[in-house]
Amino acid sequence: MPASPLPDLSRCAIHTMTNKPWTLAECCQRYREAGVGGVSVWRNVIEPIGIDEAARIVRDSGLAVPALVRGGFFPGVDAATRQRAMDENRVCLDEAAALGAQMVVLVVGAVPGMPLAEARRQVSDGVAGLLEHARGVGVKLAIEPLHPMYAGDKSCINRMAEARGVCQELGDPLVGIAVDVYHVWWDPDLETEIRLSGEQGTLFALHVCDWRVPTRDLLTDRGLMGEGCIDIRSIRGMVEATGFKGFNEVEIFSEEHWAEDQEAYLDKVVLAYREHT
Amino acid sequence: MPASPLPDLSRCAIHTMTNKPWTLAECCQRYREAGVGGVSVWRNVIEPIGIDEAARIVRDSGLAVPALVRGGFFPGVDAATRQRAMDENRVCLDEAAALGAQMVVLVVGAVPGMPLAEARRQVSDGVAGLLEHARGVGVKLAIEPLHPMYAGDKSCINRMAEARGVCQELGDPLVGIAVDVYHVWWDPDLETEIRLSGEQGTLFALHVCDWRVPTRDLLTDRGLMGEGCIDIRSIRGMVEATGFKGFNEVEIFSEEHWAEDQEAYLDKVVLAYREHT
Repeated sequence: MPASPLPDLSRCAIHTMTNKPWTLAECCQRYREAGVGGVSVWRNVIEPIGIDEAARIVRDSGLAVPALVRGGFFPGVDAATRQRAMDENRVCLDEAAALGAQMVVLVVGAVPGMPLAEARRQVSDGVAGLLEHARGVGVKLAIEPLHPMYAGDKSCINRMAEARGVCQELGDPLVGIAVDVYHVWWDPDLETEIRLSGEQGTLFALHVCDWRVPTRDLLTDRGLMGEGCIDIRSIRGMVEATGFKGFNEVEIFSEEHWAEDQEAYLDKVVLAYREHT
Repeated sequence: MPASPLPDLSRCAIHTMTNKPWTLAECCQRYREAGVGGVSVWRNVIEPIGIDEAARIVRDSGLAVPALVRGGFFPGVDAATRQRAMDENRVCLDEAAALGAQMVVLVVGAVPGMPLAEARRQVSDGVAGLLEHARGVGVKLAIEPLHPMYAGDKSCINRMAEARGVCQELGDPLVGIAVDVYHVWWDPDLETEIRLSGEQGTLFALHVCDWRVPTRDLLTDRGLMGEGCIDIRSIRGMVEATGFKGFNEVEIFSEEHWAEDQEAYLDKVVLAYREHT
């Protein structure tokens, strides 16, 4: 059953990558002025200013920070590669803690030619290896199942079922799932999986955007909510039926929208959030 | 377990779309000269010459015809649209019979914004409505699950599980599944689904190509076997373990390869078939 329209922007968060041309400071200022409740921070906007300055900007904005994006990329062909990924993930967790982020979103990785089952094995091991550090800094880890079109090189976890399997195996309250409608909308098991994830206590995040028809690029042609074919409101209804009270995080990669005036585009994002989320 | 290398080209068939610049006559002549056993015919090469001439070319070539490609596109927003699709599918079945094709491959269709479950309902009804005609002309119907990146507008059946469900529901020996490695390689249930389809007697076809990393276009950037990350030989092993004795059909859409000299490219196709299929 579709969810009711959202009464306001208090549960709206926007990923900085949505407004890629903006700095972190610009994102935070504009989002706050727009009345948005939160910002999810991509690491590329931290890099030019450093984590201390980034943390100050976010703190001063008063915005909540659902997530730092993104850690993961666990599978590697040798131990040294995998170790480097683990080290980077610990830095990522420290940055998330500094920002006051609730979770790090994990794009778990894949290696072309490595069997997906083996890659998933390495993902489980990798996430397990981060638990102590995550506990120490008080940051959750959200596995994001990515669309099967990214199975070749970006993510060996392409359905909620496999993410839920990792959560089940690790059985740690810090490990959960980030549900992005873009990646999972086509899944015939979606409603069941959302319910099971809710029962498991692992439904950590909901990301929204839309699937354009036709989609012109595999990476950077996501649509604003309402520009595509996803029944976002019904998926939000499924998620909220589990008791989810988190943010609805707008995360849109779009060359087309990045080329627009970003202030006018933010107005469109807010409108799309109100009307199609 | 990976299959053994293929001893020769007798079970190799090539889809005419693989060599898009060629006419049907050119395809048949070159494939026969290369020692390939079969040709699967796309309707676009019939259109300029008519079905009688196409049937004569194919018959004279001595090549087997595993499939005519493609029928389907069942879902529609109104009854008239759906009826037009049914009429077109009957023409397609007649053409398949004229060519001596064993099956029509069904790309089942999807309508942007129509719930996928409703679209699948319309697909079941559509396939059911073709059974009598298919029986009359002695042609099988092979549902091809398409990659989830086509769920928006091309196919509401994106895993073998849903195709198998339609087969189960209709329970007719004329209805089965065309397994294309490009569409299903990522599926965590793939091995199980192939086994179950085999037990069901519905594993009608195996299509091969490869998934390029990165993939630069959603439609026309398929790789030659060996150019991508799919473990084709293992998937063929799973298929043959069910007792499958049909053709390994090469089906590659690639702007890059279509731009090459097609005779030299056919040599590469044959080499890739021998070494990576």
